[in-house]
Amino acid sequence: MRASEIVAHKRDGGTLSAEELRFLIRGYLDGSIPEYQVSAWLMAVYFQGMTGDETGALTREMIASGDTIALDESARPYVDKHSTGGVGDKVSLILAPLAAACGVRVPMMSGRALGHTGGTLDKLDSIPGYRSVLDPGQFARAVSEVGFAMTGQSEQIVPADRKLYALRDVTATVESIPLITASILSKKFAEGADALVMDVKCGRGAFMKTPDDARALAESLVSTGRSLGRNVVAVMTRMDEPLGAMVGNFLEVEEACRLLSAPDKPSSLFDLPAFWDHRLRDLVEVTLHLTAWMIVLSGIESRHEAALELARARLVDGSAYRVFRKNVTAQGGAVEKLEAGLGSRRAPVTHEVICPTAGTVTGIDAFKIGMAGIDLGVGRNQAEDDVEPDVGIELFVKCGDEIAAGTPLCRLFATGEQAMTAASQRAESAFMIEPGTGGSRPSSWIIEELHELE
Amino acid sequence: MRASEIVAHKRDGGTLSAEELRFLIRGYLDGSIPEYQVSAWLMAVYFQGMTGDETGALTREMIASGDTIALDESARPYVDKHSTGGVGDKVSLILAPLAAACGVRVPMMSGRALGHTGGTLDKLDSIPGYRSVLDPGQFARAVSEVGFAMTGQSEQIVPADRKLYALRDVTATVESIPLITASILSKKFAEGADALVMDVKCGRGAFMKTPDDARALAESLVSTGRSLGRNVVAVMTRMDEPLGAMVGNFLEVEEACRLLSAPDKPSSLFDLPAFWDHRLRDLVEVTLHLTAWMIVLSGIESRHEAALELARARLVDGSAYRVFRKNVTAQGGAVEKLEAGLGSRRAPVTHEVICPTAGTVTGIDAFKIGMAGIDLGVGRNQAEDDVEPDVGIELFVKCGDEIAAGTPLCRLFATGEQAMTAASQRAESAFMIEPGTGGSRPSSWIIEELHELE
Repeated sequence: MRASEIVAHKRDGGTLSAEELRFLIRGYLDGSIPEYQVSAWLMAVYFQGMTGDETGALTREMIASGDTIALDESARPYVDKHSTGGVGDKVSLILAPLAAACGVRVPMMSGRALGHTGGTLDKLDSIPGYRSVLDPGQFARAVSEVGFAMTGQSEQIVPADRKLYALRDVTATVESIPLITASILSKKFAEGADALVMDVKCGRGAFMKTPDDARALAESLVSTGRSLGRNVVAVMTRMDEPLGAMVGNFLEVEEACRLLSAPDKPSSLFDLPAFWDHRLRDLVEVTLHLTAWMIVLSGIESRHEAALELARARLVDGSAYRVFRKNVTAQGGAVEKLEAGLGSRRAPVTHEVICPTAGTVTGIDAFKIGMAGIDLGVGRNQAEDDVEPDVGIELFVKCGDEIAAGTPLCRLFATGEQAMTAASQRAESAFMIEPGTGGSRPSSWIIEELHELE
Repeated sequence: MRASEIVAHKRDGGTLSAEELRFLIRGYLDGSIPEYQVSAWLMAVYFQGMTGDETGALTREMIASGDTIALDESARPYVDKHSTGGVGDKVSLILAPLAAACGVRVPMMSGRALGHTGGTLDKLDSIPGYRSVLDPGQFARAVSEVGFAMTGQSEQIVPADRKLYALRDVTATVESIPLITASILSKKFAEGADALVMDVKCGRGAFMKTPDDARALAESLVSTGRSLGRNVVAVMTRMDEPLGAMVGNFLEVEEACRLLSAPDKPSSLFDLPAFWDHRLRDLVEVTLHLTAWMIVLSGIESRHEAALELARARLVDGSAYRVFRKNVTAQGGAVEKLEAGLGSRRAPVTHEVICPTAGTVTGIDAFKIGMAGIDLGVGRNQAEDDVEPDVGIELFVKCGDEIAAGTPLCRLFATGEQAMTAASQRAESAFMIEPGTGGSRPSSWIIEELHELE
């Protein structure tokens, strides 16, 4: 077997065998196949794609490159959720304790902020004392005791992904659907998940800008899951405006707590979004919908509707919040300090973006808000940068809202004036206000979903 | 400027600027851009192609990577011919002295055997004493004194091509038309040619198997020439059966001498092919046709027909052969020894392939004959192998010939029995004989030609 023949085979649109992929990935990792052949293969994959079985074989080989986490076998199945990344996306912070409160076992491995999108680990780090990186033993124990645990990816899990990603990053081959698929699934399955709910975000603030692109990734995830013998449900959700009202690190933890610790019960379990502030409507819908799929994948309910009902009940009866508090304590966090900060922990320099003219909000560009977040220190310009826990943006409006001139559109929290100047200009440019009334709020934030369940 | 952005630009089908290509090639040569980025770019070029101007800018940058040969300025223009490689292709050995005899100045740099195709340098090396590698000063003097000279490519000419070709070879990016174009033209123009006649071979025994592929290369060569301000005439010629009757090294020198030193004059200059053995018909047509274009590009004649007439005249009046002998002497060869070997220098082990059944020759697979040649030692399995000067194959028939059962189709000459066994089996499989009469000899071996002359 020769690497150049494997590259030529893919270049010509052929399907690589599991043996060929094994030869390539192992050779890359042990140094016997040089990077220039791997990068030529990556570019050929960019143009020719891969089948679900090919992507499955690649994923398997990537998993085999490192350790896998040993979870308690008797508590299977384990179900995780992963998002392709959005702005204001604090879904994991709510969904993980909620799913656990419904009986799902959730071993969740998350990442840091990447580009304009936030990172769950950075958000967790804003909780006083919280240890967001656990060793495999601590992680397995926390999943077993609390029902879910959160951790960052360790160096020992899927080292092939780290190495391949670094090469993709400098060879313009990041944006390849099968390579993205293998990168996501290898990490999720190596961490011990038996099934996965994928939140494939779609829109201005997402990696996938169009439904066609998002659907292609969703299909690749589902078919690769099938090839690996694991159920993957891929839900395409809107990411044009930021999710919820808060964009930040502690600000998003606060919003998650607010949703989890609903102060009173709604009149109807089926009218949850209306119960809260309307700005949380998208966040509530997406979180409940994804959580319900986790319940189905766990076998706790067989129908999505019934699972949705269970999730709603566990959210409003406070049991999800209890699980959340238990996790914070289990991972070393100080619940009292966390709760004492809710509503008051804010970076000192504030600024409000004021609406210049009456009308309707027709767009809040999530990408621009995300970039304003980077200016403030929510995310990173470079991998080495530190993030700021208490900076961010609170949106006062959502798409479809009617608004009077002179009303604030959002408030920014910064640690210094310089960051604020850049961020507020960027945030201002994110709002599209058109004259007249009659808003364009989506009726649902779920675009489409793909799976192979009965 | 960042290499990864240049790769992404090409990946997305963009046209790279001369500055971007300069940055990439210089960075590659000075080591500041790693090979894995260059190979990703090569694969992107494979899929997205390059415009004539882009290929021109790449060619210019490749030429600038090394020395160029300083020829006598007062004797311009210099015109060269290059072939994409065929089996039995001894055209250069006849065309160079013939063009020189017509007044064309020909600085010819040739290569060694590659794959199943022969190499002019290997053929020249079979002439006793001949020095096929000259230093630039010797080369310029020989062109000036004899009218043409032959040499191999020196290490100092277009080092970027050597480095890029080695990388293309191991990353499955050899078969890219703009990369082939830049590789050919950079070498030809660095060696001092002002204009070029390209023999784009097409068929079973050629690199380009179909007229569409050959035409795409021809178009790329002509448009890139235009971008560089140099005339390129691209002639697509048939390469289904071997050219002429001989396949070997000294065997092909012998055939060239035979054609150059026609023992008697033909009845009509316009009936040259019929004058010789009919097996040389294709060789005569292709050689005269290409030589005539060199005469036109030199400005000696303005019309191809008139140039063809001149070439015919110089071939049959013996002046081309006189120039050939002068070149042999100028490059250290022993003309008497060479001529003494004609018709008798043969490797000792011989074998004839016998026609099993009466019929018509409908095909002689040039690729298989070329591979049989490699078995015998005409060419190389690996770059380090030595070639054998006196081995090879003499064809007794050509396509379209009617043949009786029991008649020999070809004779092979080998240095040992083992090579003969492999080669004769391969050669046998190359012949297609169909029952009945009524041959299918092409009426012309010129398929099509492209240029931008008036």
